[in-house]
Amino acid sequence: MQARSDLSRRQGRKIAFVPTMGFLHEGHLSLMKAGHKRADEVIVSIFVNPTQFGPGEDLEAYPRDFDRDCRLCEKEGVNIIFAPDAKELYPNGFQTYMTLEKLPHHLCGISRPSHFRGVATVVSKLFNIVKPHIAIFGEKDFQQLQVIRRMVKDMNFDVEIVGAPIVRETDGLAMSSRNTYLSPEQRVSALSLCKSLQKAKEMTASGVTDATKIIDATIKLIRNYPETAIDYVAVCDPETLDDMKIIDKPAVMALAVKVGKTRLIDNMMLAERV
Amino acid sequence: MQARSDLSRRQGRKIAFVPTMGFLHEGHLSLMKAGHKRADEVIVSIFVNPTQFGPGEDLEAYPRDFDRDCRLCEKEGVNIIFAPDAKELYPNGFQTYMTLEKLPHHLCGISRPSHFRGVATVVSKLFNIVKPHIAIFGEKDFQQLQVIRRMVKDMNFDVEIVGAPIVRETDGLAMSSRNTYLSPEQRVSALSLCKSLQKAKEMTASGVTDATKIIDATIKLIRNYPETAIDYVAVCDPETLDDMKIIDKPAVMALAVKVGKTRLIDNMMLAERV
Repeated sequence: MQARSDLSRRQGRKIAFVPTMGFLHEGHLSLMKAGHKRADEVIVSIFVNPTQFGPGEDLEAYPRDFDRDCRLCEKEGVNIIFAPDAKELYPNGFQTYMTLEKLPHHLCGISRPSHFRGVATVVSKLFNIVKPHIAIFGEKDFQQLQVIRRMVKDMNFDVEIVGAPIVRETDGLAMSSRNTYLSPEQRVSALSLCKSLQKAKEMTASGVTDATKIIDATIKLIRNYPETAIDYVAVCDPETLDDMKIIDKPAVMALAVKVGKTRLIDNMMLAERV
Repeated sequence: MQARSDLSRRQGRKIAFVPTMGFLHEGHLSLMKAGHKRADEVIVSIFVNPTQFGPGEDLEAYPRDFDRDCRLCEKEGVNIIFAPDAKELYPNGFQTYMTLEKLPHHLCGISRPSHFRGVATVVSKLFNIVKPHIAIFGEKDFQQLQVIRRMVKDMNFDVEIVGAPIVRETDGLAMSSRNTYLSPEQRVSALSLCKSLQKAKEMTASGVTDATKIIDATIKLIRNYPETAIDYVAVCDPETLDDMKIIDKPAVMALAVKVGKTRLIDNMMLAERV
Protein backbone atom coordinates (compact mmCIF):
# COMPACT_ATOMS: atom_id res chain seq x y z
CA MET A 1 0.00 0.00 0.00
CA GLN A 2 2.82 2.39 0.90
CA ALA A 3 4.65 1.68 -2.37
CA ARG A 4 1.41 2.21 -4.33
CA SER A 5 0.78 5.54 -2.64
CA ASP A 6 4.40 6.63 -3.14
CA LEU A 7 3.92 5.96 -6.84
CA SER A 8 0.67 7.97 -7.00
CA ARG A 9 2.37 10.84 -5.20
CA ARG A 10 5.39 10.79 -7.53
CA GLN A 11 2.95 10.94 -10.46
CA GLY A 12 1.37 14.01 -8.89
CA ARG A 13 -1.94 12.29 -8.16
CA LYS A 14 -3.91 13.54 -5.16
CA ILE A 15 -5.11 10.80 -2.81
CA ALA A 16 -8.34 10.98 -0.80
CA PHE A 17 -8.80 8.46 2.00
CA VAL A 18 -12.03 7.22 3.56
CA PRO A 19 -11.41 5.00 6.59
CA THR A 20 -14.38 2.74 7.44
CA MET A 21 -15.28 -0.31 9.49
CA GLY A 22 -17.23 -1.67 6.51
CA PHE A 23 -20.92 -2.66 6.29
CA LEU A 24 -21.19 0.41 4.14
CA HIS A 25 -24.26 2.63 3.90
CA GLU A 26 -25.21 5.88 2.14
CA GLY A 27 -23.23 7.82 4.74
CA HIS A 28 -20.00 6.08 3.73
CA LEU A 29 -20.84 6.47 0.03
CA SER A 30 -21.21 10.23 0.53
CA LEU A 31 -17.65 10.31 1.91
CA MET A 32 -16.40 8.53 -1.21
CA LYS A 33 -18.25 11.02 -3.42
CA ALA A 34 -16.67 13.88 -1.43
CA GLY A 35 -13.29 12.22 -2.02
CA HIS A 36 -13.76 12.04 -5.78
CA LYS A 37 -14.65 15.74 -5.85
CA ARG A 38 -11.39 16.69 -4.13
CA ALA A 39 -8.78 14.20 -5.34
CA ASP A 40 -7.59 12.05 -8.25
CA GLU A 41 -8.02 8.74 -6.48
CA VAL A 42 -10.07 7.47 -3.56
CA ILE A 43 -8.78 4.80 -1.20
CA VAL A 44 -11.23 3.16 1.21
CA SER A 45 -10.07 1.10 4.17
CA ILE A 46 -12.33 -1.57 5.62
CA PHE A 47 -11.13 -2.62 9.05
CA VAL A 48 -13.11 -3.39 12.20
CA ASN A 49 -10.49 -2.03 14.57
CA PRO A 50 -10.31 -4.08 17.78
CA THR A 51 -8.51 -1.40 19.84
CA GLN A 52 -11.47 0.98 19.69
CA PHE A 53 -13.87 -1.55 21.22
CA GLY A 54 -13.97 -1.89 25.01
CA PRO A 55 -14.59 -5.08 26.98
CA GLY A 56 -18.23 -6.15 26.58
CA GLU A 57 -18.75 -4.00 23.48
CA ASP A 58 -19.88 -5.34 20.09
CA LEU A 59 -16.55 -6.17 18.41
CA GLU A 60 -17.57 -9.73 17.47
CA ALA A 61 -21.19 -8.84 16.71
CA TYR A 62 -20.28 -5.81 14.57
CA PRO A 63 -21.95 -6.37 11.17
CA ARG A 64 -19.69 -7.39 8.30
CA ASP A 65 -20.32 -8.03 4.57
CA PHE A 66 -17.08 -7.68 2.68
CA ASP A 67 -18.42 -8.78 -0.71
CA ARG A 68 -21.29 -6.32 -0.61
CA ASP A 69 -18.85 -3.57 0.54
CA CYS A 70 -16.60 -4.32 -2.45
CA ARG A 71 -19.52 -4.06 -4.87
CA LEU A 72 -20.58 -0.72 -3.37
CA CYS A 73 -17.01 0.61 -3.55
CA GLU A 74 -16.71 -0.47 -7.17
CA LYS A 75 -19.96 1.30 -8.00
CA GLU A 76 -18.59 4.47 -6.41
CA GLY A 77 -15.42 4.24 -8.49
CA VAL A 78 -13.17 3.63 -5.50
CA ASN A 79 -9.62 3.05 -6.73
CA ILE A 80 -8.32 0.86 -3.90
CA ILE A 81 -9.88 -1.01 -1.00
CA PHE A 82 -7.36 -1.54 1.80
CA ALA A 83 -8.56 -4.33 4.10
CA PRO A 84 -5.76 -5.41 6.42
CA ASP A 85 -5.79 -8.24 8.92
CA ALA A 86 -5.90 -7.36 12.63
CA LYS A 87 -2.79 -9.48 13.28
CA GLU A 88 -0.94 -7.51 10.64
CA LEU A 89 -1.85 -4.13 12.13
CA TYR A 90 -1.30 -5.27 15.73
CA PRO A 91 1.68 -7.64 15.68
CA ASN A 92 3.13 -9.45 18.70
CA GLY A 93 4.65 -6.99 21.16
CA PHE A 94 2.49 -4.09 19.94
CA GLN A 95 2.57 -1.38 22.61
CA THR A 96 2.35 2.07 20.98
CA TYR A 97 -0.76 4.24 21.22
CA MET A 98 -1.72 7.74 20.19
CA THR A 99 -3.27 9.33 23.25
CA LEU A 100 -5.06 12.64 23.70
CA GLU A 101 -5.22 14.19 27.14
CA LYS A 102 -8.45 16.21 27.03
CA LEU A 103 -10.91 15.55 24.20
CA PRO A 104 -11.50 11.86 25.11
CA HIS A 105 -12.71 12.86 28.58
CA HIS A 106 -15.99 14.20 27.17
CA LEU A 107 -19.17 12.72 25.67
CA CYS A 108 -18.69 9.14 24.40
CA GLY A 109 -15.24 8.94 26.02
CA ILE A 110 -16.82 8.86 29.47
CA SER A 111 -18.60 5.55 28.95
CA ARG A 112 -16.00 4.32 26.43
CA PRO A 113 -12.70 5.27 28.15
CA SER A 114 -10.27 3.61 25.69
CA HIS A 115 -12.32 4.18 22.52
CA PHE A 116 -10.64 7.33 21.21
CA ARG A 117 -7.17 6.03 22.00
CA GLY A 118 -8.00 3.13 19.67
CA VAL A 119 -9.44 5.46 17.03
CA ALA A 120 -6.49 7.88 17.11
CA THR A 121 -4.03 4.98 17.00
CA VAL A 122 -5.58 3.19 14.04
CA VAL A 123 -6.13 6.41 12.09
CA SER A 124 -2.45 7.32 12.61
CA LYS A 125 -1.41 3.89 11.42
CA LEU A 126 -3.69 4.10 8.39
CA PHE A 127 -2.39 7.59 7.53
CA ASN A 128 1.17 6.20 7.60
CA ILE A 129 0.16 3.28 5.39
CA VAL A 130 -2.19 5.00 2.92
CA LYS A 131 -0.31 8.34 2.80
CA PRO A 132 -3.33 10.40 1.74
CA HIS A 133 -3.41 14.11 0.94
CA ILE A 134 -6.91 14.40 2.38
CA ALA A 135 -9.05 12.19 4.60
CA ILE A 136 -12.83 12.37 4.90
CA PHE A 137 -14.81 11.59 8.04
CA GLY A 138 -18.52 11.75 8.71
CA GLU A 139 -19.82 14.38 11.11
CA LYS A 140 -22.08 11.81 12.77
CA ASP A 141 -19.06 10.72 14.81
CA PHE A 142 -18.59 14.30 15.90
CA GLN A 143 -16.20 13.70 18.77
CA GLN A 144 -14.12 11.36 16.59
CA LEU A 145 -13.80 14.10 13.98
CA GLN A 146 -12.63 16.62 16.61
CA VAL A 147 -10.16 14.09 18.06
CA ILE A 148 -8.71 13.50 14.61
CA ARG A 149 -8.52 17.20 13.76
CA ARG A 150 -6.65 17.84 17.02
CA MET A 151 -4.34 14.86 16.52
CA VAL A 152 -3.50 15.92 12.97
CA LYS A 153 -2.65 19.43 14.15
CA ASP A 154 -0.67 18.27 17.21
CA MET A 155 1.27 15.56 15.36
CA ASN A 156 1.88 17.63 12.19
CA PHE A 157 0.26 15.10 9.89
CA ASP A 158 0.34 16.55 6.36
CA VAL A 159 -3.27 15.45 5.77
CA GLU A 160 -6.25 17.74 5.21
CA ILE A 161 -9.23 16.61 7.26
CA VAL A 162 -12.66 17.05 5.71
CA GLY A 163 -15.87 16.60 7.68
CA ALA A 164 -18.92 15.48 5.66
CA PRO A 165 -22.54 16.12 6.75
CA ILE A 166 -24.60 13.42 8.42
CA VAL A 167 -26.66 11.39 5.96
CA ARG A 168 -30.15 10.57 7.30
CA GLU A 169 -32.92 8.16 6.39
CA THR A 170 -36.02 9.90 5.01
CA ASP A 171 -37.55 9.91 8.51
CA GLY A 172 -34.44 11.54 9.99
CA LEU A 173 -32.54 8.62 11.58
CA ALA A 174 -28.79 9.11 11.13
CA MET A 175 -27.32 6.32 8.99
CA SER A 176 -25.23 3.86 10.96
CA SER A 177 -24.05 0.29 10.46
CA ARG A 178 -25.45 -0.38 13.93
CA ASN A 179 -29.02 0.47 12.81
CA THR A 180 -29.14 -3.09 11.51
CA TYR A 181 -29.33 -4.30 15.15
CA LEU A 182 -32.74 -2.59 15.67
CA SER A 183 -36.07 -4.43 15.82
CA PRO A 184 -39.03 -2.69 14.07
CA GLU A 185 -40.22 -1.34 17.47
CA GLN A 186 -36.73 -0.14 18.38
CA ARG A 187 -36.42 1.47 14.95
CA VAL A 188 -39.32 3.75 15.98
CA SER A 189 -37.68 4.58 19.33
CA ALA A 190 -34.41 5.35 17.49
CA LEU A 191 -36.16 8.38 15.98
CA SER A 192 -36.10 9.98 19.43
CA LEU A 193 -32.49 11.03 18.81
CA CYS A 194 -33.03 13.12 15.69
CA LYS A 195 -36.44 14.36 16.86
CA SER A 196 -35.06 15.66 20.12
CA LEU A 197 -32.11 17.31 18.32
CA GLN A 198 -34.53 18.98 15.95
CA LYS A 199 -36.58 20.21 18.89
CA ALA A 200 -33.44 21.53 20.62
CA LYS A 201 -32.51 23.41 17.46
CA GLU A 202 -35.98 24.94 17.25
CA MET A 203 -35.82 26.00 20.91
CA THR A 204 -32.47 27.72 20.26
CA ALA A 205 -33.84 29.40 17.13
CA SER A 206 -36.79 30.67 19.13
CA GLY A 207 -34.40 32.41 21.56
CA VAL A 208 -33.80 29.93 24.40
CA THR A 209 -30.14 30.26 25.47
CA ASP A 210 -30.21 28.26 28.72
CA ALA A 211 -28.55 24.94 27.83
CA THR A 212 -30.00 23.15 30.87
CA LYS A 213 -33.53 24.00 29.75
CA ILE A 214 -32.85 22.60 26.29
CA ILE A 215 -31.17 19.46 27.66
CA ASP A 216 -34.10 18.82 30.01
CA ALA A 217 -36.58 19.05 27.12
CA THR A 218 -34.42 16.67 25.09
CA ILE A 219 -34.21 14.11 27.89
CA LYS A 220 -37.96 14.28 28.42
CA LEU A 221 -38.68 13.70 24.74
CA ILE A 222 -36.32 10.70 24.52
CA ARG A 223 -37.72 9.08 27.67
CA ASN A 224 -41.18 9.09 26.07
CA TYR A 225 -40.01 6.40 23.67
CA PRO A 226 -39.89 2.76 24.87
CA GLU A 227 -36.60 0.87 25.36
CA THR A 228 -34.48 4.06 25.44
CA ALA A 229 -31.72 4.63 28.00
CA ILE A 230 -29.79 7.88 27.76
CA ASP A 231 -25.98 7.70 28.01
CA TYR A 232 -25.53 11.47 27.72
CA VAL A 233 -27.13 14.59 26.29
CA ALA A 234 -24.69 17.51 26.07
CA VAL A 235 -24.52 21.03 24.70
CA CYS A 236 -20.89 21.82 24.10
CA ASP A 237 -18.25 23.90 22.39
CA PRO A 238 -17.67 22.20 19.00
CA GLU A 239 -13.86 22.43 19.28
CA THR A 240 -13.02 21.78 22.94
CA LEU A 241 -16.22 19.78 23.67
CA ASP A 242 -16.45 21.65 26.99
CA ASP A 243 -20.01 21.88 28.33
CA MET A 244 -21.79 25.17 27.68
CA LYS A 245 -24.27 26.66 30.16
CA ILE A 246 -25.40 29.56 27.97
CA ILE A 247 -25.60 29.32 24.20
CA ASP A 248 -23.87 32.57 23.25
CA LYS A 249 -21.49 31.17 20.63
CA PRO A 250 -21.37 28.20 18.22
CA ALA A 251 -22.74 25.17 20.04
CA VAL A 252 -23.34 21.54 19.20
CA MET A 253 -25.80 19.22 20.88
CA ALA A 254 -24.46 15.66 21.03
CA LEU A 255 -26.20 12.64 22.45
CA ALA A 256 -25.86 8.92 22.93
CA VAL A 257 -28.85 6.72 23.64
CA LYS A 258 -29.15 2.99 24.05
CA VAL A 259 -32.21 1.64 22.23
CA GLY A 260 -32.53 -1.89 23.53
CA LYS A 261 -28.91 -3.08 23.47
CA THR A 262 -27.94 -0.85 20.55
CA ARG A 263 -26.00 2.30 21.39
CA LEU A 264 -26.79 5.10 18.92
CA ILE A 265 -25.25 8.57 18.63
CA ASP A 266 -26.30 11.71 16.82
CA ASN A 267 -25.54 15.44 16.93
CA MET A 268 -26.64 18.77 15.52
CA MET A 269 -25.32 22.33 15.51
CA LEU A 270 -27.72 24.39 17.61
CA ALA A 271 -26.14 27.73 16.82
CA GLU A 272 -23.48 28.37 14.19
CA ARG A 273 -23.24 32.12 14.73
CA VAL A 274 -25.39 33.65 17.43
CA MET B 1 9.62 21.79 5.27
CA GLN B 2 6.84 19.42 4.20
CA ALA B 3 6.60 21.05 0.77
CA ARG B 4 10.39 20.86 0.36
CA SER B 5 10.41 17.16 1.25
CA ASP B 6 7.46 16.47 -1.06
CA LEU B 7 9.48 18.05 -3.88
CA SER B 8 12.57 15.94 -3.10
CA ARG B 9 10.44 12.83 -3.03
CA ARG B 10 8.76 13.66 -6.35
CA GLN B 11 12.24 14.12 -7.83
CA GLY B 12 13.14 10.65 -6.58
CA ARG B 13 15.69 11.93 -4.06
CA LYS B 14 16.21 9.83 -0.94
CA ILE B 15 16.09 11.78 2.32
CA ALA B 16 18.12 10.89 5.42
CA PHE B 17 17.14 12.57 8.68
CA VAL B 18 19.28 13.18 11.77
CA PRO B 19 17.24 14.57 14.68
CA THR B 20 19.41 16.35 17.28
CA MET B 21 19.13 18.70 20.23
CA GLY B 22 22.09 20.67 18.88
CA PHE B 23 25.44 21.46 20.56
CA LEU B 24 26.81 19.03 18.03
CA HIS B 25 29.81 16.77 18.59
CA GLU B 26 31.62 14.05 16.65
CA GLY B 27 28.84 11.61 17.52
CA HIS B 28 26.28 13.74 15.69
CA LEU B 29 28.66 14.27 12.77
CA SER B 30 29.02 10.50 12.40
CA LEU B 31 25.23 10.27 12.01
CA MET B 32 25.36 12.88 9.23
CA LYS B 33 28.14 10.94 7.50
CA ALA B 34 26.04 7.76 7.77
CA GLY B 35 23.16 9.72 6.21
CA HIS B 36 25.22 10.85 3.23
CA LYS B 37 26.27 7.24 2.59
CA ARG B 38 22.66 6.07 2.42
CA ALA B 39 20.70 8.95 0.87
CA ASP B 40 20.77 11.85 -1.59
CA GLU B 41 20.17 14.55 0.98
CA VAL B 42 20.67 14.91 4.70
CA ILE B 43 18.30 16.93 6.87
CA VAL B 44 19.34 17.75 10.45
CA SER B 45 16.86 19.03 13.01
CA ILE B 46 18.10 21.10 15.94
CA PHE B 47 15.46 21.30 18.64
CA VAL B 48 15.81 21.11 22.42
CA ASN B 49 12.51 19.33 22.96
CA PRO B 50 10.80 20.48 26.17
CA THR B 51 8.45 17.48 26.46
CA GLN B 52 11.32 15.04 27.02
CA PHE B 53 12.63 16.95 30.05
CA GLY B 54 11.05 16.30 33.43
CA PRO B 55 10.55 18.81 36.22
CA GLY B 56 13.92 19.73 37.77
CA GLU B 57 15.87 18.43 34.76
CA ASP B 58 18.29 20.53 32.70
CA LEU B 59 15.99 21.97 29.99
CA GLU B 60 17.10 25.58 30.56
CA ALA B 61 20.74 24.70 31.25
CA TYR B 62 21.04 22.39 28.23
CA PRO B 63 24.00 23.71 26.18
CA ARG B 64 23.16 25.59 22.97
CA ASP B 65 25.33 27.12 20.21
CA PHE B 66 23.27 27.46 17.06
CA ASP B 67 25.90 29.33 15.03
CA ARG B 68 28.57 26.75 15.72
CA ASP B 69 26.05 23.96 14.94
CA CYS B 70 25.31 25.59 11.58
CA ARG B 71 29.00 25.79 10.70
CA LEU B 72 29.48 22.11 11.60
CA CYS B 73 26.44 21.07 9.53
CA GLU B 74 27.68 23.07 6.56
CA LYS B 75 31.09 21.40 6.83
CA GLU B 76 29.35 18.00 6.77
CA GLY B 77 27.42 18.97 3.64
CA VAL B 78 24.06 18.91 5.39
CA ASN B 79 21.37 20.00 2.92
CA ILE B 80 18.84 21.45 5.35
CA ILE B 81 18.83 22.42 9.02
CA PHE B 82 15.32 22.36 10.47
CA ALA B 83 15.21 24.37 13.68
CA PRO B 84 11.61 24.99 14.75
CA ASP B 85 10.38 27.05 17.65
CA ALA B 86 8.91 25.24 20.66
CA LYS B 87 5.71 27.31 20.40
CA GLU B 88 5.34 26.20 16.80
CA LEU B 89 5.69 22.51 17.61
CA TYR B 90 3.56 22.72 20.76
CA PRO B 91 0.76 25.21 20.02
CA ASN B 92 -1.98 26.25 22.45
CA GLY B 93 -4.25 23.34 23.27
CA PHE B 94 -1.60 20.72 22.42
CA GLN B 95 -2.69 17.42 23.98
CA THR B 96 -1.57 14.51 21.79
CA TYR B 97 1.24 12.16 22.79
CA MET B 98 2.76 8.99 21.42
CA THR B 99 2.92 6.58 24.32
CA LEU B 100 4.53 3.16 24.64
CA GLU B 101 3.26 0.77 27.29
CA LYS B 102 6.33 -1.34 28.09
CA LEU B 103 9.73 -0.13 26.89
CA PRO B 104 9.64 3.15 28.88
CA HIS B 105 9.28 1.23 32.14
CA HIS B 106 12.93 0.11 32.03
CA LEU B 107 16.33 1.74 32.51
CA CYS B 108 16.24 5.55 32.13
CA GLY B 109 12.43 5.52 32.07
CA ILE B 110 12.32 4.60 35.75
CA SER B 111 13.93 7.84 36.94
CA ARG B 112 12.64 9.83 33.94
CA PRO B 113 8.98 8.66 33.72
CA SER B 114 7.77 11.03 30.97
CA HIS B 115 11.04 11.19 29.00
CA PHE B 116 10.30 8.58 26.33
CA ARG B 117 6.77 9.84 25.81
CA GLY B 118 8.35 13.19 24.92
CA VAL B 119 10.94 11.53 22.67
CA ALA B 120 8.41 9.36 20.82
CA THR B 121 6.08 12.34 20.41
CA VAL B 122 8.65 14.74 19.00
CA VAL B 123 10.20 12.10 16.72
CA SER B 124 6.73 11.31 15.32
CA LYS B 125 6.11 14.99 14.73
CA LEU B 126 9.50 15.44 13.07
CA PHE B 127 8.91 12.37 10.86
CA ASN B 128 5.61 13.90 9.71
CA ILE B 129 7.31 17.23 9.00
CA VAL B 130 10.60 16.07 7.47
CA LYS B 131 9.17 13.00 5.67
CA PRO B 132 12.47 11.12 5.56
CA HIS B 133 13.13 7.72 3.95
CA ILE B 134 15.64 6.86 6.65
CA ALA B 135 16.45 8.29 10.07
CA ILE B 136 19.71 7.83 11.95
CA PHE B 137 20.07 7.63 15.71
CA GLY B 138 23.14 7.08 17.89
CA GLU B 139 23.39 3.84 19.83
CA LYS B 140 24.53 5.78 22.92
CA ASP B 141 20.87 6.46 23.63
CA PHE B 142 20.20 2.76 23.43
CA GLN B 143 16.75 2.75 25.01
CA GLN B 144 15.69 5.68 22.83
CA LEU B 145 16.72 3.73 19.73
CA GLN B 146 14.68 0.70 20.83
CA VAL B 147 11.66 2.90 21.65
CA ILE B 148 11.84 4.45 18.20
CA ARG B 149 12.27 1.12 16.43
CA ARG B 150 9.21 -0.22 18.25
CA MET B 151 7.16 2.91 17.58
CA VAL B 152 8.04 2.87 13.88
CA LYS B 153 6.96 -0.77 13.62
CA ASP B 154 3.78 -0.32 15.67
CA MET B 155 2.69 2.88 13.93
CA ASN B 156 3.66 1.75 10.40
CA PHE B 157 5.97 4.69 9.77
CA ASP B 158 7.54 4.20 6.34
CA VAL B 159 10.95 5.19 7.70
CA GLU B 160 14.01 2.95 7.93
CA ILE B 161 15.71 3.33 11.30
CA VAL B 162 19.51 3.10 11.35
CA GLY B 163 21.50 2.84 14.57
CA ALA B 164 25.03 4.24 14.45
CA PRO B 165 27.84 3.12 16.81
CA ILE B 166 28.78 5.19 19.85
CA VAL B 167 31.59 7.66 19.16
CA ARG B 168 34.06 7.91 22.05
CA GLU B 169 36.82 10.30 23.10
CA THR B 170 40.32 8.78 22.84
CA ASP B 171 40.17 7.79 26.51
CA GLY B 172 36.83 6.02 26.01
CA LEU B 173 34.25 8.52 27.28
CA ALA B 174 31.11 8.39 25.14
CA MET B 175 30.56 11.72 23.36
CA SER B 176 27.66 13.72 24.79
CA SER B 177 26.60 17.36 24.75
CA ARG B 178 26.29 17.02 28.53
CA ASN B 179 30.05 16.28 28.92
CA THR B 180 30.50 20.04 28.76
CA TYR B 181 29.01 20.27 32.28
CA LEU B 182 31.93 18.27 33.79
CA SER B 183 34.75 19.82 35.86
CA PRO B 184 38.28 18.42 35.21
CA GLU B 185 37.93 16.16 38.29
CA GLN B 186 34.45 14.98 37.24
CA ARG B 187 35.80 14.33 33.73
CA VAL B 188 38.09 11.69 35.30
CA SER B 189 35.20 10.14 37.25
CA ALA B 190 33.13 10.04 34.05
CA LEU B 191 35.56 7.42 32.73
CA SER B 192 34.11 5.00 35.26
CA LEU B 193 31.19 4.36 32.87
CA CYS B 194 33.18 3.10 29.89
CA LYS B 195 35.81 1.41 32.06
CA SER B 196 33.21 -0.60 33.94
CA LEU B 197 31.45 -1.55 30.69
CA GLN B 198 34.79 -2.69 29.26
CA LYS B 199 35.42 -4.76 32.38
CA ALA B 200 31.92 -6.30 32.15
CA LYS B 201 32.58 -7.23 28.54
CA GLU B 202 35.89 -8.85 29.49
CA MET B 203 34.22 -10.81 32.30
CA THR B 204 31.60 -12.10 29.84
CA ALA B 205 34.29 -13.00 27.29
CA SER B 206 36.16 -14.92 29.99
CA GLY B 207 33.07 -17.07 30.61
CA VAL B 208 31.13 -15.38 33.42
CA THR B 209 27.39 -15.77 32.66
CA ASP B 210 25.92 -14.66 36.00
CA ALA B 211 24.60 -11.14 35.35
CA THR B 212 24.46 -10.29 39.07
CA LYS B 213 28.18 -11.00 39.43
CA ILE B 214 28.98 -8.73 36.51
CA ILE B 215 26.67 -5.98 37.74
CA ASP B 216 28.25 -6.13 41.23
CA ALA B 217 31.75 -5.74 39.79
CA THR B 218 30.54 -2.80 37.68
CA ILE B 219 28.97 -1.06 40.65
CA LYS B 220 32.11 -1.56 42.73
CA LEU B 221 34.32 -0.10 40.02
CA ILE B 222 32.11 2.98 39.55
CA ARG B 223 31.90 3.64 43.31
CA ASN B 224 35.71 3.85 43.46
CA TYR B 225 35.52 7.14 41.54
CA PRO B 226 34.66 10.32 43.48
CA GLU B 227 31.39 12.21 42.92
CA THR B 228 29.65 9.23 41.27
CA ALA B 229 26.08 8.20 42.11
CA ILE B 230 24.66 5.23 40.22
CA ASP B 231 21.13 5.58 38.81
CA TYR B 232 21.09 2.04 37.38
CA VAL B 233 23.34 -0.70 36.06
CA ALA B 234 21.43 -3.32 34.06
CA VAL B 235 22.10 -6.35 31.90
CA CYS B 236 19.15 -6.76 29.58
CA ASP B 237 17.67 -8.14 26.42
CA PRO B 238 18.52 -5.60 23.68
CA GLU B 239 15.00 -5.67 22.19
CA THR B 240 12.60 -5.96 25.14
CA LEU B 241 15.02 -4.39 27.68
CA ASP B 242 13.89 -7.07 30.16
CA ASP B 243 16.53 -7.84 32.83
CA MET B 244 18.62 -10.94 32.22
CA LYS B 245 19.86 -13.17 35.06
CA ILE B 246 22.02 -15.46 32.92
CA ILE B 247 23.84 -14.27 29.82
CA ASP B 248 22.91 -17.05 27.41
CA LYS B 249 21.82 -14.90 24.45
CA PRO B 250 22.57 -11.41 23.08
CA ALA B 251 22.80 -9.02 26.03
CA VAL B 252 23.47 -5.34 26.50
CA MET B 253 24.79 -3.68 29.63
CA ALA B 254 23.32 -0.22 30.08
CA LEU B 255 24.07 2.23 32.85
CA ALA B 256 23.30 5.72 34.06
CA VAL B 257 25.55 7.47 36.56
CA LYS B 258 25.40 10.95 38.00
CA VAL B 259 28.85 12.53 38.12
CA GLY B 260 28.36 15.58 40.29
CA LYS B 261 25.08 16.96 38.96
CA THR B 262 25.60 15.62 35.44
CA ARG B 263 23.69 12.48 34.50
CA LEU B 264 25.66 10.38 31.99
CA ILE B 265 24.62 7.19 30.18
CA ASP B 266 26.55 4.57 28.28
CA ASN B 267 26.06 0.99 27.08
CA MET B 268 27.87 -1.91 25.48
CA MET B 269 26.91 -5.26 23.99
CA LEU B 270 28.28 -7.93 26.32
CA ALA B 271 27.45 -10.86 24.07
CA GLU B 272 26.27 -10.64 20.50
CA ARG B 273 26.05 -14.39 19.94
CA VAL B 274 26.94 -16.67 22.83
